[in-house]
Amino acid sequence: MDGARRAGAPSDEPAAWRLPASGAWHPGLGAAERQFFELSPDRPFTLEGGGLLHKPVLAYETWGALDADASNAVLVCHALTGDAHAHGAAHPPAQLTEGWWNDFIGPGRPLDTNRYFIVCANVLGGCQGSTGPSSLNPSTGERYGPDFPVVTNRDVVRSQWALGRHLGIERWLSVVGGSMGGMAVLEWGITYPQRVGSLVVIAASAEASAQQIAWSKVGRQAIYDDPNFVGGRYYDAPDGEGPHRGLANARRIAMIHYRSGDEFDRRFARHSEDPVLPLRLEQRFDVESYLDYQGAKFVPRFDANTYLVLNKMMDLHDVGRGRGGTDAALARIVAPTMVMSVRTDFLYPRPQQLRIVEALRSRDAIRVEHVDIDSDNGHDGFLTEPDQTGPPMGEFIDDIYKSAAVPPGAAR
Amino acid sequence: MDGARRAGAPSDEPAAWRLPASGAWHPGLGAAERQFFELSPDRPFTLEGGGLLHKPVLAYETWGALDADASNAVLVCHALTGDAHAHGAAHPPAQLTEGWWNDFIGPGRPLDTNRYFIVCANVLGGCQGSTGPSSLNPSTGERYGPDFPVVTNRDVVRSQWALGRHLGIERWLSVVGGSMGGMAVLEWGITYPQRVGSLVVIAASAEASAQQIAWSKVGRQAIYDDPNFVGGRYYDAPDGEGPHRGLANARRIAMIHYRSGDEFDRRFARHSEDPVLPLRLEQRFDVESYLDYQGAKFVPRFDANTYLVLNKMMDLHDVGRGRGGTDAALARIVAPTMVMSVRTDFLYPRPQQLRIVEALRSRDAIRVEHVDIDSDNGHDGFLTEPDQTGPPMGEFIDDIYKSAAVPPGAAR
Repeated sequence: MDGARRAGAPSDEPAAWRLPASGAWHPGLGAAERQFFELSPDRPFTLEGGGLLHKPVLAYETWGALDADASNAVLVCHALTGDAHAHGAAHPPAQLTEGWWNDFIGPGRPLDTNRYFIVCANVLGGCQGSTGPSSLNPSTGERYGPDFPVVTNRDVVRSQWALGRHLGIERWLSVVGGSMGGMAVLEWGITYPQRVGSLVVIAASAEASAQQIAWSKVGRQAIYDDPNFVGGRYYDAPDGEGPHRGLANARRIAMIHYRSGDEFDRRFARHSEDPVLPLRLEQRFDVESYLDYQGAKFVPRFDANTYLVLNKMMDLHDVGRGRGGTDAALARIVAPTMVMSVRTDFLYPRPQQLRIVEALRSRDAIRVEHVDIDSDNGHDGFLTEPDQTGPPMGEFIDDIYKSAAVPPGAAR
Repeated sequence: MDGARRAGAPSDEPAAWRLPASGAWHPGLGAAERQFFELSPDRPFTLEGGGLLHKPVLAYETWGALDADASNAVLVCHALTGDAHAHGAAHPPAQLTEGWWNDFIGPGRPLDTNRYFIVCANVLGGCQGSTGPSSLNPSTGERYGPDFPVVTNRDVVRSQWALGRHLGIERWLSVVGGSMGGMAVLEWGITYPQRVGSLVVIAASAEASAQQIAWSKVGRQAIYDDPNFVGGRYYDAPDGEGPHRGLANARRIAMIHYRSGDEFDRRFARHSEDPVLPLRLEQRFDVESYLDYQGAKFVPRFDANTYLVLNKMMDLHDVGRGRGGTDAALARIVAPTMVMSVRTDFLYPRPQQLRIVEALRSRDAIRVEHVDIDSDNGHDGFLTEPDQTGPPMGEFIDDIYKSAAVPPGAAR
């Protein structure tokens, strides 16, 4: 306990705050549904930034069955703190969270597991089963920690392409995702235009904005400033300590810009279970308790080094890099595309999605749809509004599936 | 240097990061223009929260001359990180910043020093000359540190009222301010309705919203989480250390919600003086360098304990507390009132000012004006747009001055 506690700062440290000294960062390893794919068993996997990964692994899950002609496969791309477990129950301690898109995936749901073969993989750099900073580096026998290389959305997409081939999928019926997942969806359409039948991009942008980078920065800084970060080599701290306070504050910060002022007003206003009177510095309004809870809940399931790597991945998101700019990059997309915005999203505001829509609509050839989600949940509306998000997405993919429009020259 | 540096996190620690071990926190004490008022020399000053301050002092500055009938006095209320130095040059090391409202105050300017007597005082709890956590507690001979009591806007207003009487001002021609200063302006109109001839409230709200509290929380948390905070008793650290990293990150966070995404896009976009290629985790986009610079510039001039106390003051801002609610409180205001909004302010968004305007307009008796400021500077538009903010404010106060409308029963 440091001075902050002595000064009466409210405690946000649950019993689970100190983690087991080792093995804590692969909670997904023991999850029943999880499968593993050796991405590049014979030679190192080269990343866009030049880094090499030896024998990297992707953790993934699937739901439904692949058709004989492999025409019904849908790839779901997760957001920053998501994982391969898009659907299903929680299985603590291996899988601490239930499926993050449960309302969208399942029999009769928009991503209908009676019709489609759904795949979701933890991204490279992640901490939920795929190779990331908390993984053992086969070259050294130590965890990568700060030596883990920079990973980009393009690396993620290339790894997912390899996973698809491994599963017998040469062309995805659809690639869908929100936030960081939406960035991957765009990269899919640009990198493999003939290998994807449709795209659903939710609450994402064609390139990270300065404000997004700024928010990412202050979260990373909270981790760097935590003395338990010890240069990213905290995995073997004998008492299970790590940059947990920094990571928790990064999460608190994020939970503000993931949500909206309207929602906070509705849910919390100025309520305070902790009595406001007599006035005290340490009194917590309910919204503060909520943020503390979110921080504490996050720490046991997420690795700080992965947080750094994936935030940087999002900051580096720029579909135009090395492709002659944003418009030239978006012009490579030939798949029918649905773009969704949440009206109260101030992290990935609506004009950023309209920017994508306009670029795609400037070419008459492809089908482009834009859907507005009315929600006060801000950016997280891509997770919280299945009744608004699900049906149009489901109908859109259904259309594509029925028309089975295969571009000339595409493998199927 | 801790692990963050070893890991290649960009350094944001300037030479001035380590401060002189003592005396560093009263930079205002030696400033030439600054004067001091002993608020309650004979008995303790009792705060709304029940705390007692012994022999508290207000640091203040004045510009212009008071009329014989003391009818031309304008009180300027500063924002969170402001001070009494609303006008004038910087005088380092005593006064590190130039007047924070230089463009508004001076001969021929909206707050015309040829006509008005302008007063600005550092708030109680501050660190720029007024009694605050970094002051010596006369009862103990030690700095208050975490023992400093909770201070509210109402305490600030009562202390300013006493300062006014000391200066011979029974009634202010106008009380003006933005952000935290705007909260004080509202409290002025409610607490002393007959003692103020007009109010100018800029970019403030009648009560802190849940989202404002949330942002305040994460900034405070960054300070609490800094091991150099040592419970708020860091003043005598032999090497001048203090919770400077935490304070710097609190400032970075604030600089995001003080500004706007539009402004960041315009100024920074995805520019990076630090080469993006080859891809590196430690590469900083220009917006990150800007935030680092803002954090580093802030630390030498601001005390972390004051940051905690004043942020809590803003969180506790609620004109309706103990007064039967917001509307009942606002109904006490009889002074003509001008309310200003910055269109891109997402920290104190426009509907919060319209809420005040509507409450005041519901009574036909008083003059209420609302001004929109078109700026992409977000909340900081109240500081950065003198051409839009100054003229209406100046004309409004001029009108009041000329009409010299004194409510019945008011002292003048």
